[in-house]
Amino acid sequence: MAWNTNLRWRLPVICLLLQVALVVLFGVFVRYDLDADAHWIEERMSRNISSDLDNEFYYRYPSFQDVHVMIFVGFGFLMTFLQRYGYSAVGFNFLLAAFGIQWALLMQGWFHSFDGRYILLGVENLINADFCVGSVCVAFGAVLGKVSPVQLLIMTLFQVTLFSVNEFILLSLLEVKDAGGSMTIHTFGAYFGLTVTWILYRPNLYQSKDRPSSVYHSDLFAMIGTLFLWMYWPSFNSAVSNHGDAQHRAVINTYCSLAACVLTAVALSSVLHKKGKLDMVHIQNATLAGGVAVGTAAEMMLMPYGSLVIGFICGIISTLGFVYLTPFLESRLRIQDTCGIHNLHGMPGIIGGIVGAVTAASANTELYGQEGLAFAFGFGSSTLSWNASTQGKFQAAGLFVSLAMALVGGIIVGVILKLPFWGQAADENCFEDAIYWEMPKDQKSIVFRSEDPTLKPSEP
Amino acid sequence: MAWNTNLRWRLPVICLLLQVALVVLFGVFVRYDLDADAHWIEERMSRNISSDLDNEFYYRYPSFQDVHVMIFVGFGFLMTFLQRYGYSAVGFNFLLAAFGIQWALLMQGWFHSFDGRYILLGVENLINADFCVGSVCVAFGAVLGKVSPVQLLIMTLFQVTLFSVNEFILLSLLEVKDAGGSMTIHTFGAYFGLTVTWILYRPNLYQSKDRPSSVYHSDLFAMIGTLFLWMYWPSFNSAVSNHGDAQHRAVINTYCSLAACVLTAVALSSVLHKKGKLDMVHIQNATLAGGVAVGTAAEMMLMPYGSLVIGFICGIISTLGFVYLTPFLESRLRIQDTCGIHNLHGMPGIIGGIVGAVTAASANTELYGQEGLAFAFGFGSSTLSWNASTQGKFQAAGLFVSLAMALVGGIIVGVILKLPFWGQAADENCFEDAIYWEMPKDQKSIVFRSEDPTLKPSEP
Amino acid sequence: MAWNTNLRWRLPVICLLLQVALVVLFGVFVRYDLDADAHWIEERMSRNISSDLDNEFYYRYPSFQDVHVMIFVGFGFLMTFLQRYGYSAVGFNFLLAAFGIQWALLMQGWFHSFDGRYILLGVENLINADFCVGSVCVAFGAVLGKVSPVQLLIMTLFQVTLFSVNEFILLSLLEVKDAGGSMTIHTFGAYFGLTVTWILYRPNLYQSKDRPSSVYHSDLFAMIGTLFLWMYWPSFNSAVSNHGDAQHRAVINTYCSLAACVLTAVALSSVLHKKGKLDMVHIQNATLAGGVAVGTAAEMMLMPYGSLVIGFICGIISTLGFVYLTPFLESRLRIQDTCGIHNLHGMPGIIGGIVGAVTAASANTELYGQEGLAFAFGFGSSTLSWNASTQGKFQAAGLFVSLAMALVGGIIVGVILKLPFWGQAADENCFEDAIYWEMPKDQKSIVFRSEDPTLKPSEP
Repeated sequence: MAWNTNLRWRLPVICLLLQVALVVLFGVFVRYDLDADAHWIEERMSRNISSDLDNEFYYRYPSFQDVHVMIFVGFGFLMTFLQRYGYSAVGFNFLLAAFGIQWALLMQGWFHSFDGRYILLGVENLINADFCVGSVCVAFGAVLGKVSPVQLLIMTLFQVTLFSVNEFILLSLLEVKDAGGSMTIHTFGAYFGLTVTWILYRPNLYQSKDRPSSVYHSDLFAMIGTLFLWMYWPSFNSAVSNHGDAQHRAVINTYCSLAACVLTAVALSSVLHKKGKLDMVHIQNATLAGGVAVGTAAEMMLMPYGSLVIGFICGIISTLGFVYLTPFLESRLRIQDTCGIHNLHGMPGIIGGIVGAVTAASANTELYGQEGLAFAFGFGSSTLSWNASTQGKFQAAGLFVSLAMALVGGIIVGVILKLPFWGQAADENCFEDAIYWEMPKDQKSIVFRSEDPTLKPSEP
Repeated sequence: MAWNTNLRWRLPVICLLLQVALVVLFGVFVRYDLDADAHWIEERMSRNISSDLDNEFYYRYPSFQDVHVMIFVGFGFLMTFLQRYGYSAVGFNFLLAAFGIQWALLMQGWFHSFDGRYILLGVENLINADFCVGSVCVAFGAVLGKVSPVQLLIMTLFQVTLFSVNEFILLSLLEVKDAGGSMTIHTFGAYFGLTVTWILYRPNLYQSKDRPSSVYHSDLFAMIGTLFLWMYWPSFNSAVSNHGDAQHRAVINTYCSLAACVLTAVALSSVLHKKGKLDMVHIQNATLAGGVAVGTAAEMMLMPYGSLVIGFICGIISTLGFVYLTPFLESRLRIQDTCGIHNLHGMPGIIGGIVGAVTAASANTELYGQEGLAFAFGFGSSTLSWNASTQGKFQAAGLFVSLAMALVGGIIVGVILKLPFWGQAADENCFEDAIYWEMPKDQKSIVFRSEDPTLKPSEP
Repeated sequence: MAWNTNLRWRLPVICLLLQVALVVLFGVFVRYDLDADAHWIEERMSRNISSDLDNEFYYRYPSFQDVHVMIFVGFGFLMTFLQRYGYSAVGFNFLLAAFGIQWALLMQGWFHSFDGRYILLGVENLINADFCVGSVCVAFGAVLGKVSPVQLLIMTLFQVTLFSVNEFILLSLLEVKDAGGSMTIHTFGAYFGLTVTWILYRPNLYQSKDRPSSVYHSDLFAMIGTLFLWMYWPSFNSAVSNHGDAQHRAVINTYCSLAACVLTAVALSSVLHKKGKLDMVHIQNATLAGGVAVGTAAEMMLMPYGSLVIGFICGIISTLGFVYLTPFLESRLRIQDTCGIHNLHGMPGIIGGIVGAVTAASANTELYGQEGLAFAFGFGSSTLSWNASTQGKFQAAGLFVSLAMALVGGIIVGVILKLPFWGQAADENCFEDAIYWEMPKDQKSIVFRSEDPTLKPSEP
């Protein structure tokens, strides 16, 4: 079967339609929240706030910018490891994230920032929109090289919607804590993406076999992504935590977990190679698993050694996953996971959800103080009968809900994306920029296998 | 005509002379402002300020660092797209910016931070110096590949001077609002640079025709520049806004405008290619136009949907400019605009100025509140008869002043740079690092066309 | 002599052992400090602190993230200039820093944050751990390409220990000021690294002569490192300064010094080349010397022109060092300094120590104010007889102690690393990723000289 990969009308039309719809919806629904509105100065005077610094902006803005870098440079460059897919990795990630954040501002806004008439935007909404798109970037890793930008926009549209529903169920209905998004972002994003790629299974992918590998320079570009993700992960896990000690603690825990993770990932990478050599895939990915797994519990009293233990375990599990599980998933379960997101986001996300449940269940007044416990979990306020054990159970329930949403949503979206008119490439043209990008002249000689399938259809 | 490109004495002498002059002028004129002086603790106690945080440093520093990254990594790497000009793009940008910020501290200091005896420096001066140099980086984009580092230093010297005069006219005399610099930075910088490159027209530039194109990896390096500019633009447009809601709002508006701009730039890039393929030039540049165009109005009550509309329009106009206008400018008007700054900074800058004028003219008490309006525009304080409509007219006047300064200044500086002894390369050696840089050995075989013109002069 | 470079058991065992030890020690010794503990809310209420912002987190966190980027991306990518050693530069830097920060949290914690029972962690500890590891990254530059990751972990273990002892002597016993670490980080790190590489002298290193050079793209990767170091250096020098004016001033001074340094480095690079061409090595390194040299005095009343003078001098000295001193050290003193750290960290570090001593000795009430002087140096508080002149002498003493610790420590560690069973490569296989990394397939043909020494031992 040959598909038409010429996107000349499909991509522009969908981009413009989506953007026009967003403009209209923003016009009808979106305004500034009080801290970002020109009336704030009156509010500040009436509430007798002494300093301009007591604007939410100053609590969150540095973290926001770090998260922003993670989404666009972090995820974008992490996926440039493929030798012939760098433009698409960075460019499509840019496109889907730019669309996704706008749609997420609306979806999350309706659920969490709607005053009955308007969605009121502030810096926290921007962070949450970036978070939501983070889960799409995770899923993108599973289908990388095998889908068209049109498919990615459709996937983003649905995934952001599902993410927001799932997040609402978890945070608002189940009152789950998940500041760093182990469950809502990583578990949901990973299993959603894996389900989609399972539905989109390409039996003849081996025809483009050489291209899903890296070259020397592409691995260095990918390390830019890895390092910005790794360095700014403390901001990610602390960005929407409570002011003060919770943000502070989330940073310390994430810093510790990530550091430990690097050592065990390196150890496993070396021991699993017959000559003890390190594999860049592990260094690029498994070193980040500690940040994923500490997402839910980072703001809790996990203790620095607790974070180290989590990082320790995740570096091992993630590297083992790359060596043994990814090939197994592909050969037995027909799940073609290009970036190994199951190892970086899937398993560590589940571990993070469990750690969060256990840590919440162990919360007590000695550890948090009376006030601290109330502030951290809201115990004793709206939910009088709430206690640590209940919180732990609801945390666990949140994990299952996320998994269920990801699987069901992934099947539906996968089936939609399987329709033959979205401009996807034939199996032998996967992992190839030249299908969707005008290439520099001097590269023409290298791209000998990439023919425009619209001119000369190839057979499967 | 053959020029001598050996800079052995010219470049060192001008660097050292400029730097010695700067040391002397700093010694005579520059001290710390109160928030950066050791006497601050006494001031704080006497003014009964409760917290150390109420130092200007904590309001501005995170934004400053983001702006700093935009100038040095953002602009520097954005221009590495040329296959044989990466060293010069990053290196000369580094050089001119390092000189420019020092000179800007003095020039802007005399106009805005002079207490009669000393220029008093604080973090806001550092941001403004970076901004000023931003306009030089913009102009650099027009002449990229065609000028020597000596010419760049001279251009920086004059452009920073003119920028500061123009900025003083706009901000202090016309009391114009331009926090993100649509007019002072982008419009001025772009039309200044275009005028200079028009004067420096090189009729035989086609001789180095192959080199002003990219190769695969150079486009990925350029994406590093693009993304850091795109991600940190909210900091750029909010860095010197009023404390509190104005900074907060500028971030939200810029975030929205940039996101919309990505979708329309992608749409146009695809629809303008006969096979619907995307062009990296558009992704690298046109996606940023939304940040430029929202510069003036970002801190105003533009509304999120207003920002989306601006981004929407600019993504389209900028991409159209790259496809149709740049070739036209080169062939008909003899304006050789290497990076297409007219599309990224010129037109969006003018749009930004107009949007700012209209937005200011529409300001009213309902939208801003009584106090908010006074705080945002200074209405009712020093300028009693001032009102929104007057502000709008002055904003428009500011745009024309900026354009006039750019054109007149550009002609003068262009004529100076046309003098034959600044070490510029012959037409056939443009866009070539080997003229000014010691190249790695293994590259020698590739640089077959680059001969040192001092040894074997070539004919025009 | 042929060494076995197969690390299959050595590297994993040492990584896992170290990490298990860290987990145990953290479990026994490490907890959160008050600002990061859930009890903070109670403390805040009892101390009547009005705002959540008065948590140490908000003073230090933006600077921390910048420093973090310097350590992992800055140092990591700065060393990717070698054509065949990019994986190792970034990857080993990542490994040693991830281990080092954990060990530094403990070592520095015992000296500075130990409450008798627990080390209490806050954001300042994270910054200081990054600083400590910075000195290891400096030393790594001297031995780059010539040591195995096992040797690097051992070096990190010892160097972090010695750093902490030295830092304790300087900061706590001698009451020296060294916020930006000219002495504790740069001088100590550089002379420690130089001593180690002197002990590890490889007489036949010329056999891998071609590889310690760069290629076109590797120099651009290195510029990413250079620029992030350069841009964020103001955060580095101000990160642990006193709140308010001291942080503010340190930023201004560092900004000025670095800017001046770029111009003189460019000038010298050009004048020292027979055709006036610039050398990327100088642009990548000497432009940073101003940040090193202003480390100690940045928070003092150095004045902006004072900073410019320091940057001016260091740009010159550092470039001269690269051209004349590095070859001399290698040929005469048998010190093989791969990255030229003596020019970037050694000499500028010593200059920084001296400048700090002189600036401290010149402190007076006119310049600082009565309160300011007490706040900046602690004069008149715990140390009643203390005065500026004493402070200056102790600063100078601190410089000598740092040098002595570096030399003695370097010899001991060098001798340990010389033992033949750490997996180091033979002389002809230095500067080669393929020894320790699984390489992409298409690179195999290029790596013709890299044979696995375990299979076919080569003779010296």
